[in-house]
Amino acid sequence: MSFRPLHDRVLIRRLEGEEKTKGGIIIPDTAKEKPQEGEVIAVGPGARDEAGKLVALDVKAGDRVLFGKWSGVEVKIDGADVLIVKEADILGVVG
Amino acid sequence: MSFRPLHDRVLIRRLEGEEKTKGGIIIPDTAKEKPQEGEVIAVGPGARDEAGKLVALDVKAGDRVLFGKWSGVEVKIDGADVLIVKEADILGVVG
Amino acid sequence: MSFRPLHDRVLIRRLEGEEKTKGGIIIPDTAKEKPQEGEVIAVGPGARDEAGKLVALDVKAGDRVLFGKWSGVEVKIDGADVLIVKEADILGVVG
Amino acid sequence: MSFRPLHDRVLIRRLEGEEKTKGGIIIPDTAKEKPQEGEVIAVGPGARDEAGKLVALDVKAGDRVLFGKWSGVEVKIDGADVLIVKEADILGVVG
Amino acid sequence: MSFRPLHDRVLIRRLEGEEKTKGGIIIPDTAKEKPQEGEVIAVGPGARDEAGKLVALDVKAGDRVLFGKWSGVEVKIDGADVLIVKEADILGVVG
Amino acid sequence: MSFRPLHDRVLIRRLEGEEKTKGGIIIPDTAKEKPQEGEVIAVGPGARDEAGKLVALDVKAGDRVLFGKWSGVEVKIDGADVLIVKEADILGVVG
Amino acid sequence: MSFRPLHDRVLIRRLEGEEKTKGGIIIPDTAKEKPQEGEVIAVGPGARDEAGKLVALDVKAGDRVLFGKWSGVEVKIDGADVLIVKEADILGVVG
Repeated sequence: MSFRPLHDRVLIRRLEGEEKTKGGIIIPDTAKEKPQEGEVIAVGPGARDEAGKLVALDVKAGDRVLFGKWSGVEVKIDGADVLIVKEADILGVVG
Repeated sequence: MSFRPLHDRVLIRRLEGEEKTKGGIIIPDTAKEKPQEGEVIAVGPGARDEAGKLVALDVKAGDRVLFGKWSGVEVKIDGADVLIVKEADILGVVG
Repeated sequence: MSFRPLHDRVLIRRLEGEEKTKGGIIIPDTAKEKPQEGEVIAVGPGARDEAGKLVALDVKAGDRVLFGKWSGVEVKIDGADVLIVKEADILGVVG
Repeated sequence: MSFRPLHDRVLIRRLEGEEKTKGGIIIPDTAKEKPQEGEVIAVGPGARDEAGKLVALDVKAGDRVLFGKWSGVEVKIDGADVLIVKEADILGVVG
Repeated sequence: MSFRPLHDRVLIRRLEGEEKTKGGIIIPDTAKEKPQEGEVIAVGPGARDEAGKLVALDVKAGDRVLFGKWSGVEVKIDGADVLIVKEADILGVVG
Repeated sequence: MSFRPLHDRVLIRRLEGEEKTKGGIIIPDTAKEKPQEGEVIAVGPGARDEAGKLVALDVKAGDRVLFGKWSGVEVKIDGADVLIVKEADILGVVG
Repeated sequence: MSFRPLHDRVLIRRLEGEEKTKGGIIIPDTAKEKPQEGEVIAVGPGARDEAGKLVALDVKAGDRVLFGKWSGVEVKIDGADVLIVKEADILGVVG
């Protein structure tokens, strides 16, 4: 089954333990605002600029991303923990 | 009888129990911000961009959607519990 | 006598008891944000977009509308209870 | 002597007692946000839109208006109580 | 010596006692938001609209103005009490 | 060594004691919001308007300026106390 | 491994002790809002203006910058402490 995010929303699967990027990125326990690692599952069509034209998102399905810990709304799709976040809450793409 | 939402508002019938999407989407009880499932009954003509031009909505009657739990205004039309929400409160389309 | 609303304001006569739409719309007593039913008496010329051009309103005199309970300013014109609300506070048109 | 309001400001003389519109408009004592009746004495040249072009006001000297009770700044010109309000605080024109 | 205000700022000399406009404007002691009278000494080149174009101010040196009591920053230039205010804090021109 | 401010930021050297403008500008101790005097050392390239075009700043290196007391970030460059402020915090140019 | 910041975000390596710019810039311990020194590692493609067009950032990899102490999100990439900040939090370029 599928879920199609609206606007500038992005569906992300949170990565845990062994799935996480190895070696490269460590998020210190002492970090003030601790980001999380995830994989993009689906993206919305984009936000509209002031002229009402769609501006496509900068991330795509399959991207590994860091995003703010407190971002988004949690749901479970086909047994996997997923989050629906706005693209503005994604810090960048790993890899 | 009918209800025609204004602007970027959407009329949604909340789905409960058996009507809910089967198997696929589970909203965990522990979710910080618990979304709800519903079916779109009617949509407004859209919001206006800065030039005053209408931008049509991305959802249509019949769509199954997830939306924020605390969104919208509740009314009862022809015996069914419905909500009037803004499209920006809809997270995405299921299916 | 007449009252001409300015900008995007709308003059509404609140509907009570028998005048209310029959059968169709019921506003539950337990609704968190309880809307009200009314009839549009007069509408302003519209708001101006960023280029200063008038954008006409989507409701017209005679429309039956739902609007937020706490919206607007109350006055009495020719013996009738009326409210002056902004069109953005109108949820939709009943009909 | 004269007073020339700047921008979208409007100079209003508050109407009291016998001067008030007769019969037509009654502002109930129980109104949550009680509007007041007044006569427009002078208007500013208008606000500027985003392109810096003047957009003239919708009221003119001589108009009888309803405006929000808590709006504006009070001064006394030539013995009359007047208020300097923004046009956005004027609800509509009586007539 | 001179002071050249930046942007939409205006240099105002506060008028006291005999200098005040005679007869015409009285600011009642009971006014909720008591405006003050002053003379414009110098004006900035204007604010920029969204296209980055300068929009000249509506007041000029020599104008007698009313402005909000709590507006602006006080300095003393060549012995006179002056205020640097934004033009938006000026209510209108007396005269 | 040099420091190049970004965007609409301005590097200012605070003027103290003898360096201050003589005779002309006095900032009263009782001023509610006490401005300070400084000399512009370097300016950023300007802010961008809505079309993404650079709008150059109105101050330049060498200008003597008044700016809000609580504005900006303090650093020490080559032994001098300097502040990095936004141009919007500069009230005007003395001289 | 690499990290590609999104939008107007910038990846910065914090400079400590001997790495810091010598002699020139000293950040006093008493500074109210203490900036920090760092080296830009990677930059996002830029923010979009209102027309949806990308506006490239003003800093580039290799720049030495001052930025606000409380800005950004901390992560560790390949053993180095890095921060993901928005370009607007960068005060200027040293050198």
